[in-house]
Amino acid sequence: MAKRTPSPASEGVDARIRKLAQAVADAAERGANPALDIPVRSLSNVSFNPDKAIIEMGGRTQRRSFFNLNMAKRFMQTMLVASECRKLLAQNKTTSIRDLYYMVKHTIPGTNEETFVDQATESDPVVEDLEVALDALREELRLFASNRGSLVGELTLIDSGDRINARRLGSGGWSIPSIVEPDVIQFDKCTAEYVLLVEKDAVWRRFNEDKFWRKSRCILVTGQGQPPRGVQRLVHRMVRELNLPLYVLVDNDPWGYYIYSVIKQGSINLAYESRRMAIPEARFVGLSSFDREKYRIPDNVTIRLTKEDIGRSKQILKYPWFQKKPWQREINQMLKTGVKMELEALSSKDISFITRRYLPGKLKEGDLLD
Amino acid sequence: MAKRTPSPASEGVDARIRKLAQAVADAAERGANPALDIPVRSLSNVSFNPDKAIIEMGGRTQRRSFFNLNMAKRFMQTMLVASECRKLLAQNKTTSIRDLYYMVKHTIPGTNEETFVDQATESDPVVEDLEVALDALREELRLFASNRGSLVGELTLIDSGDRINARRLGSGGWSIPSIVEPDVIQFDKCTAEYVLLVEKDAVWRRFNEDKFWRKSRCILVTGQGQPPRGVQRLVHRMVRELNLPLYVLVDNDPWGYYIYSVIKQGSINLAYESRRMAIPEARFVGLSSFDREKYRIPDNVTIRLTKEDIGRSKQILKYPWFQKKPWQREINQMLKTGVKMELEALSSKDISFITRRYLPGKLKEGDLLD
Repeated sequence: MAKRTPSPASEGVDARIRKLAQAVADAAERGANPALDIPVRSLSNVSFNPDKAIIEMGGRTQRRSFFNLNMAKRFMQTMLVASECRKLLAQNKTTSIRDLYYMVKHTIPGTNEETFVDQATESDPVVEDLEVALDALREELRLFASNRGSLVGELTLIDSGDRINARRLGSGGWSIPSIVEPDVIQFDKCTAEYVLLVEKDAVWRRFNEDKFWRKSRCILVTGQGQPPRGVQRLVHRMVRELNLPLYVLVDNDPWGYYIYSVIKQGSINLAYESRRMAIPEARFVGLSSFDREKYRIPDNVTIRLTKEDIGRSKQILKYPWFQKKPWQREINQMLKTGVKMELEALSSKDISFITRRYLPGKLKEGDLLD
Repeated sequence: MAKRTPSPASEGVDARIRKLAQAVADAAERGANPALDIPVRSLSNVSFNPDKAIIEMGGRTQRRSFFNLNMAKRFMQTMLVASECRKLLAQNKTTSIRDLYYMVKHTIPGTNEETFVDQATESDPVVEDLEVALDALREELRLFASNRGSLVGELTLIDSGDRINARRLGSGGWSIPSIVEPDVIQFDKCTAEYVLLVEKDAVWRRFNEDKFWRKSRCILVTGQGQPPRGVQRLVHRMVRELNLPLYVLVDNDPWGYYIYSVIKQGSINLAYESRRMAIPEARFVGLSSFDREKYRIPDNVTIRLTKEDIGRSKQILKYPWFQKKPWQREINQMLKTGVKMELEALSSKDISFITRRYLPGKLKEGDLLD
């Protein structure tokens, strides 16, 4: 495999794994040194693409060859994981990256050498290698991380053949799985006008209990903090396939800004997945540093910025994607006032202030940031 | 309120709050010193009841009176929280303990004094005071913590008026809410023969993907680690109201034993809720320290016990509820072999070994601990 040519989208992941294996086998038969070219995943090979408005990976690759003392073990590990993923595809099963580690871990016969000794430094990075080398999300390789997040609202979806009406899910909602690729999850009848992604689970419950999504015709999602991959990917698919706007509601602190920015343009660590994960259409609905005055939020429910908050805010001010004037104004206002606010601070006015006054007002006035 | 007499179960929580407030108002009108008697929640007032097989709170109470410099603030806080809970009941709304903190936090007019300055040391303990003083779970006071956990299987339930068929929930499942009291969640058609509570989310997904619950006719639940209150309470209700046995499947480590023991007899911290939370019927299905030999689990997927693991195991050996011979044998075997195992270790044999061989075998042979 001299050069990594991106596979056509039509080519299945299984075919891509076979192609990778075939190239190695061919090299071995020719008596050549089998090698893989893995795109470099470090900061030096990552940049913000202002046209697409996402964080992207550059074209630099690193050759990993079999006849090289430093690379032989990682090469072998890559083949083992790729082979296990093919089995998962063939059996139509999915598994956790923890489980995968146990599946590929064994003692090499006739030696004391183990194929893998540690998950975090060995099998997890190999999974990332394969994702970039095969141009496939780990979910397409049938691997998942832990799941988190709930959904209710104006949508019917099909999950593994079961029809789920998200308008009839009571107080609990649908537990969003880690793997939400089109072969598992399909969208059926959508009567929503937008997607609302709420950082906090407790706030999601307020919106659900008040049946906000019914009155305001939306799909209500929470990722319980930084959305896990399944939630991010599902929202990405809803925005693209159902043509829905996305509004993001987070705490008023540097962490909230950061959650929003990862949703919108992806992250440096996962730059190779931005194309299928980042959602440049996302719009920030709040909490804004200016909401304090606008909604007369009492001082005693604001929280003084810590040293870390101030440092983090100054860092975020410099990010290329926060260079727009309104964002500079927003972050500087937080630094100027010296305080942050949680979404729950709005409850000091009234328990349902956030669903009845705050959000409808924000959307109606278009008081949003991009 | 000279003496706390437990309210009859028929008396609603709202009536109990009114009664508490009335006693305070009466004392004030009489010119007496209003006081509350709050059961003591420390270790000294907690014990294991071997007959009921649950951890229980004793009868000792502490008087908190208004005209006492050390108690006046806590007294005022208790009244504020109780009043807010009554409002929630009247509005038929629920909220998070974080939200509640913001709802009761304000500056006392004409002073610089705030009603509450901190959630963890002020409003949360007051919630616990009220739970014991009113003999009501916080969920009955309309308060919730964060939610976590999923359910699928042979059950139809009603959640806030929506009928949810847990046999048709795809890969995601129903997201178990924090409040699962009978006014919110009712059970409808149950075709299950038992409840299986799995510690790990990733293992729950394996069981769901293999549709284990259909073949084996069960309700499949995960709490993602130590089950949160909503999951524990829901399982408690399923065991009691649907008359189902409960099997618990956890990692083979001291933490796994502990998770099982909290499910079975409650915990010291929450002793006052054991009656409505603890499930003495729970049975431990695995992983057992003896499974290593029995199922020939390879050495390289076991993990050496850490110093903390050994210390914790020795502690657990002394718990009154682990004095039965089989449990002493089980924990001593872990100490003897010096290793622990994750549920995922079974995947080194085959990805579906756990659903096809391990669990069915355990249940069939009755290889369980009580």
